[in-house]
Order: sequence, then C-alpha cells, then structure tokens
Amino acid sequence: MFAGGVVVVVFAWAQEQAADPLQQMAQALFAPLPEVMLDPDRPFSDELVDLGRMLYYDPRLSLSGFVSCNSCHNLATYGVDNLPTSLGHRWAVGPRNAPTVLNAALHSAQFWDGRAADVEEQAQGPVLNPIEMAMPHADYTIERLASMPGYVDAFAAAYPGHAEPLTYVNMADAIGAFERTLVTPDRFDAFLEGDGDALSDLERGGLQAFVNYGCAGCHGGAAIGGTVFARFGVVEAYWEATREFVTIDSPTMTMDVGRFAVTQDPADLYVFKTPALRNITRTYPYFHDGSVWDLRAATQIMARVQLGREITEEDLDALMAFYGALEGEIPAYALQLPVLPASSMTTPRPSNR
Amino acid sequence: MFAGGVVVVVFAWAQEQAADPLQQMAQALFAPLPEVMLDPDRPFSDELVDLGRMLYYDPRLSLSGFVSCNSCHNLATYGVDNLPTSLGHRWAVGPRNAPTVLNAALHSAQFWDGRAADVEEQAQGPVLNPIEMAMPHADYTIERLASMPGYVDAFAAAYPGHAEPLTYVNMADAIGAFERTLVTPDRFDAFLEGDGDALSDLERGGLQAFVNYGCAGCHGGAAIGGTVFARFGVVEAYWEATREFVTIDSPTMTMDVGRFAVTQDPADLYVFKTPALRNITRTYPYFHDGSVWDLRAATQIMARVQLGREITEEDLDALMAFYGALEGEIPAYALQLPVLPASSMTTPRPSNR
Repeated sequence: MFAGGVVVVVFAWAQEQAADPLQQMAQALFAPLPEVMLDPDRPFSDELVDLGRMLYYDPRLSLSGFVSCNSCHNLATYGVDNLPTSLGHRWAVGPRNAPTVLNAALHSAQFWDGRAADVEEQAQGPVLNPIEMAMPHADYTIERLASMPGYVDAFAAAYPGHAEPLTYVNMADAIGAFERTLVTPDRFDAFLEGDGDALSDLERGGLQAFVNYGCAGCHGGAAIGGTVFARFGVVEAYWEATREFVTIDSPTMTMDVGRFAVTQDPADLYVFKTPALRNITRTYPYFHDGSVWDLRAATQIMARVQLGREITEEDLDALMAFYGALEGEIPAYALQLPVLPASSMTTPRPSNR
Repeated sequence: MFAGGVVVVVFAWAQEQAADPLQQMAQALFAPLPEVMLDPDRPFSDELVDLGRMLYYDPRLSLSGFVSCNSCHNLATYGVDNLPTSLGHRWAVGPRNAPTVLNAALHSAQFWDGRAADVEEQAQGPVLNPIEMAMPHADYTIERLASMPGYVDAFAAAYPGHAEPLTYVNMADAIGAFERTLVTPDRFDAFLEGDGDALSDLERGGLQAFVNYGCAGCHGGAAIGGTVFARFGVVEAYWEATREFVTIDSPTMTMDVGRFAVTQDPADLYVFKTPALRNITRTYPYFHDGSVWDLRAATQIMARVQLGREITEEDLDALMAFYGALEGEIPAYALQLPVLPASSMTTPRPSNR
C-alpha cells in the first residue's frame, strides 16, 4: 500500500536453519535486529553520531529552549513519552501518539502516515512544527546552531569536505545517524539466532499464537512491524471497538484520516503504518491516538477490528508473555547525556511566546 | 542575615600552606570542592543515589508526565535550563531563574530566598508547585510511585529497615542524595590544592581582581557563593543598573521582594541568597530574574550596585578568564540516563489539564 521512498535495509543474516519448527517459522517471518541500522547510501561515522546525540538532547532546537527530541522520544522511557499524544510549544497537545525512536530506522517510512521516507527526513519535521518545537524557519535554526562554536566544530568534524557543513538538512541527517544506533536486542533475537531456550514455554506459546491469529501478516520483519500500511479497522470501525477501553478523551479519535491526508487517495482513508512491536510493553499508551493503555485490550482490539477474531484468555496470557521477550536493551552510549555546547552572546534567545 | 536551618558541611582539607601569596590568599577565602557533598546526619548509599537519579529524571513526578527535575535543572546544560525563568505545568512561566543543582548542596540554604534548609527539603517543593510539576498532593505522588513495582523495589533497597520506605519525604531525600554527588571539580580546585600552574597569568589576575574589588566578601567558600544572604542593590537599585542590559521582558524585575516573603522582616526586602560562581560561564542568564545574559555586564552591575565601584575593562577581561577556570566536570554517572521503571495498569494517568 505504501508506494514511495522505501529504504531497503539489508541484513547480513546467514543463520543456519534451526531444527525446531517454531524457530524455523520465526526465522521465516521475522529477523534478528542488526547491530546498527545502516543505510548503505548514507555516510556514518562516530563524529556524525556524536553530533546527532548532541542535537537529539538539545532543547535549543526548539524556539522556547525547553523542548528537545528527547522530550517526546525520551530514551529513559524507551524512546516515547508515555502520553496519549505529546505536548509541545506553549503546551500544545499533538494530534498523534509519539512513536518510539528505538529500532525506528528499520521502518519502511516514518510518521504514522509515512509522510517521511526515513529517520533523516523525519527529523526535519518536529523542529519546525508550530505545535512541537516551533522554530520559525530552517534558517533561524541554523543561525542558532552557528552562533555556538561547539556546534560549528562538531558539524565540521561530522561533515568533512563539506563546503557548508552546518545546514538544516545536515542537522537532521546527524540526528538520523544517531537514531540508526538505537537498536535494542532482546531475548527474541537470541531465539531467532538459534538459542531455542531463550524463550520460555509460555513465550513460545505466545509466539505461536501471534502467528496463528495472523498478527505476523502486518507485524513481521526485524522490527516486528513498521513496514506495512493498513487500514485501522478492516472488519469493524476501531473507534467502536476501543470505546470501552479508552480512559482519556482523545478528540482526534474519529477524526484522523490517516494516510489519506498525505495521498488524498480514498483507499488510504484511516490507513496508518503498522507500529513495530519491539519494546511494546513499554511504549504505552497504544494506537495512533494513544487511546488505550492496556496492552491486553489493545491486542484484543486489533484481533477484532483487523482480523475479525476473538483471542482466548489463555492465548492472551501467552501473547503478553511473548511481548515481554521483546523488551530489549537500550545502548548505553545513547543514554549518556552529552554536555552541550555553550551558547554565545550572538545566540538568538529562546522565546516562550 | 540568614538565621535558620544551616547545614554545616565539613571539609577534609588539610592542605599545606602554599608559598605563592595568591594561592595563600585563595586558600584563606575559598576551598576545593569535596568529592561528595555529604551531610553527616543523613544516610548515603549507592542504592539511595541510584533511586535519586531515577526520580530526578522521571517526568512522572509531574502531573502532566512531561516535566522532570531535569527539565529545568538539565545536567546536559550544567544543571540549569538557560532560560530567564523556567517553564512549568501548562507552560506557566516561573517567577525566578532556576539555579544550578551542581554543587548546590554546599549552599547554606536552598532557593533564592533560602526558604528550604537543604537540597532534601528543596526537592519537596517543585513537585507540588502548581506552576512547576503540579502534582495535586504528596499522597497522589506516592500513589503513582507505589503503583510501579520497579520503584517499590528501589525504595526498599534505598531505605533498608524502614517500615514504610515509599514516602514523600524519602522521595525528596533520595533526590537530595543524588544531588549531593553533583560536584564539578575544575582548574581552580587544582590551584587551591597546590598546583600554581593550574591557572594562567590572566586567570590569576582575574582571581586577584575578584578579591581586590571585594567580590569574595559574598562569593567565598567552596562553591564561591551560596552561603551569604545580601540585599540586591546595596548602593543603588539593581533594576536601574540592569536596565540597559536587559534583553527580555521580566515582569518580576521590580516586584520580587526576595527573602522578605519568607521572613516578613523589612530588613530582608530585596535580599537574596548570593549565587555560587562555579560554572558561572554556563549558567546564564544571570540574577534571580534571569534578566541579564552577558556575564561581563552582570559582573559590572554587581560591582556597581553592591560595591559602588566600576570595574576597568582590563580587569573585566581578567575576571572573565578566571570564570573560565571555574567551568568544571560533571560526573559521568549523573549524566547517564537511567532506564525508568515501567508504569502499571494501576498507575494514575498523566493529565495536561
């Protein structure tokens, strides 16, 4: 359903086929996480990732000087803010739930509606969005960064040979390079790589149920999702099915047209990118509008509205156990706050207006 | 001028007297930073500091789930937000500049008006302040923390032998314990500890000027300030002197009565705690209202309104160089974001209202 800007990520995965049939099936549907989510067409270096980490944590990328990438994609909470929808400039409440940055570079496109091709393009968005970081324009953003000698040096080191290293596109590229390191290996990777004991019996049962109910049809690959666009509500309208579980008012619930807003194609009405299920136990609340906090309920809703099925309580127990095995380890480097460059007397001042 | 709740911090400083007269004088007026800013009357353990770090970085200590201690006392920017005054719940603009948490446990009292005795008491404030983290009451805060098994375990480990480890006071105590580790040794410490070459000639000149103009009268001790309360504007009203340097409207400039609000003693009108000058190059903008961004201008204003003197341009050059030597190193442990405990289905939900 998604047509443009797909980044093909090639895995070096020459795994021998396992003897265990469940492992065989899992290896056919999923893939272990790579060490780094490289795009072969993009440069990658320590200097680029260091710069990206600085920018990711720097609230001076926002007009107010208060909001950083990490405000809504907090790495201390698995790359999300655990809010139904995010808060931004002047306490604006955003229309959609902030997806995790962890393993996000594996997705075939970025944002719930896939309007950015990759993490580098995605990173250009929130900085200039008036309800997120609210910078008035790209030039102003670069003016701020260029006023700080520490950033001038860091961009020069990250973009050697560039006549003009400090550009808005390079800023977003560096953030993207940092995000390509945000891989969270977990026990399911060990299982996929051949360790049959990496999952408990209950977790294995959950994996089997996951496949049996048809979840893997959309939630496949290394990220267990993130590569398929699908109408939310195939069998019945999701907002009818979720009503009993919703705990917080979500004004956008019945109004979000999904990918239709990008393509204007009626076939894309209520179509969203399938979220990835790595670390799904920690990226609550769920769905594009963050309307459901309970992972068990969210799973049942998905089965009902996408597949027209009802999951048994026993299978839900097993699925919850399987999800637990998808809770991975965040790289220590990414969690290390960088000490940020000093502003100077020419740095444009923050404004909370 | 400050009467109550002074914490006496004892330094183990058995330094031999230096031969260099400038070092001798510096050793008499200042002191090297301790390794940890312990309060002998308070327990201290790795578990307590680990818990404190989790709480410090956890936005769930705020009603919105968006504001953490680190939002306004960002360790990536030397324990401040580099804003004139901080933003809080529902984008409220606070009345005073957020002071740095770095080395703050050395102060004789906390807050600009000294209304808390120590960092542990201070940490009880912002969580419940309606324009900061806006938790409705202490019980609600504890209800949230107690709903997360990860916090229940961490409090039990941090407060062994406590019948009820998870209390609001213990929460603030743990944050305080973490803050007692936020010491930033710099080149001035090396100088005080006997290395005469740790400062350049210009920096030595700045130190001499600092003492000659009388700055050390209020800015002394290990933190170079933080222990004396003084009227801001002894010789002339500071808001007259600052007017030409102010770059951002500060509605509170002429309205903040300082410590008078705490004591109701007319002698405390416009009295504030003297800020500490460690890392002063990075804790802009300056003064209780954050009205002045330029450290050079702030220094001249202080000389004028506090001491009735005018600093020469040459001496200002030297003072700026000396301040540079006060830029210290933030402990790596403190900059390592902890992965925070998961919420549970009973965790009270965030509210941005």
